[in-house]
Amino acid sequence: MKLVRVGPAGREVPAVLTDDGRLLDASGVVADIDGAALSPEGLAAIAAAVPGLPELPAAEHRFGAPIARPGKVVCIGLNYALHAKESGADIPGEPVVFLKTTDTVVGPHDEVLVPRGSTKTDYEVELAVVIGRRARYLADADEALACVAGYAVSNDVSEREFQLERGGQWDKGKSCETFNPLGPWLVTADEVPDPQALRLWLSVDGQVRQDGGTSDMVFGVAEIVRYLSQFMVLEPGDVINTGTPAGVALGHPEPKPYLRAGQVVELGIDGLGVQRQVVGQA
Amino acid sequence: MKLVRVGPAGREVPAVLTDDGRLLDASGVVADIDGAALSPEGLAAIAAAVPGLPELPAAEHRFGAPIARPGKVVCIGLNYALHAKESGADIPGEPVVFLKTTDTVVGPHDEVLVPRGSTKTDYEVELAVVIGRRARYLADADEALACVAGYAVSNDVSEREFQLERGGQWDKGKSCETFNPLGPWLVTADEVPDPQALRLWLSVDGQVRQDGGTSDMVFGVAEIVRYLSQFMVLEPGDVINTGTPAGVALGHPEPKPYLRAGQVVELGIDGLGVQRQVVGQA
Repeated sequence: MKLVRVGPAGREVPAVLTDDGRLLDASGVVADIDGAALSPEGLAAIAAAVPGLPELPAAEHRFGAPIARPGKVVCIGLNYALHAKESGADIPGEPVVFLKTTDTVVGPHDEVLVPRGSTKTDYEVELAVVIGRRARYLADADEALACVAGYAVSNDVSEREFQLERGGQWDKGKSCETFNPLGPWLVTADEVPDPQALRLWLSVDGQVRQDGGTSDMVFGVAEIVRYLSQFMVLEPGDVINTGTPAGVALGHPEPKPYLRAGQVVELGIDGLGVQRQVVGQA
Repeated sequence: MKLVRVGPAGREVPAVLTDDGRLLDASGVVADIDGAALSPEGLAAIAAAVPGLPELPAAEHRFGAPIARPGKVVCIGLNYALHAKESGADIPGEPVVFLKTTDTVVGPHDEVLVPRGSTKTDYEVELAVVIGRRARYLADADEALACVAGYAVSNDVSEREFQLERGGQWDKGKSCETFNPLGPWLVTADEVPDPQALRLWLSVDGQVRQDGGTSDMVFGVAEIVRYLSQFMVLEPGDVINTGTPAGVALGHPEPKPYLRAGQVVELGIDGLGVQRQVVGQA
């Protein structure tokens, strides 16, 4: 099942996207695509209702992020070997964990703003994991995968000077406004049989910058969820950005091709849809 | 005005604590102590209603955190010179910024849990700043202070091994469950004429461990809010933990007195109330 939220920012309606491209209004079943809707019971209720859901009128729909504001956005750093290398870092021995503020989450086609004073705004295509069941001190990979509601495309936009040259903690360069386009779809886990077999790519102005595979993750989805549950409680509706493959602007030779207003970023993951952002200036 | 939330966890009622110790039920004026209630308009509405608010029945009230789940919890690291020194760090040239997940926020007298596998759970008394007005690219200290709704006591509980020895980013040791007791009161900014003139202290089992003053902050409240607004948008209801003075367990000689189940932590700030937590085991 592909879950989406369509409509103006802040007034999105929960909907199901059918395989033949129709949008079915799910607002009679769930208030929003949130933690309750993403629980096993919520997803089952939506799936059972699909045959009777009314179709949304044909229109140019804006897609919002496919989940209402998550409770937390947890990020895994340096989780692809070649990206660690291009960042000048060692391959981590255990997951590197940082956070983004949840108000960075915007729709997949919304404008991304270069912050004031920024010269090093960068892109990162990532597989986002969306939690559907409470995860606390999980024992193994099976328990971890049972906590995953689904997957989405995420752009973990980053300001490298703020992240790396302004005090040592990365969060400062990860939480600028509009810094986490998410979606367009939340694809439920049953339709992603192997999250470690997905191609993910990103281009800027049509030029491919990142082209990798989730098979190259240092720590896979199951291990990330299990590991995180030892340090924090994950709740339904929480999002995990699982790291980015090589090819970010930071990893290029000088002059590094950081984002500038007017550029167009496109990114996608097999089966999870495509994002397109025009870059603006804050 | 002192704002509180009283009742069982998850079902707290917003209330006003009067100077003579009565609790006035504010649930007829605001749904909760949240971003809307903390806006200038929300606070004015509560203040105007105080003379007519019904008294809550006398009872053993549990205090919840004085704001409903905040949108973000931003933390400033190494913001007292002696604490930076005891942590083996230099005094920062600009604020060090990290995040806690918002579900770490619990009531001021709730149990704090030592995480499984932890041997280095530590305490940090801090002045929490609560935002009441949107803060984005603020120009100066006056604009910054105008965005502050009020202040509260915060315990920025930290696991030092998770924070410092497990991958380099601090968030991993800052977001364990129960790791941010907040309250008991949110004291509105008009009743805190100088946030840089407050004594703050913390004791474990009756032994004073921290005893400092906000006058010793490296970066004061106004500068912290102004600075953060250059990197992220602060919204009403957001919380900033402004750093801890010297005396944390990490800063002691070996054997460092980290928290153990059964211990009692008490902490307070002049005019903002006192917290008391019994330490448990996750």
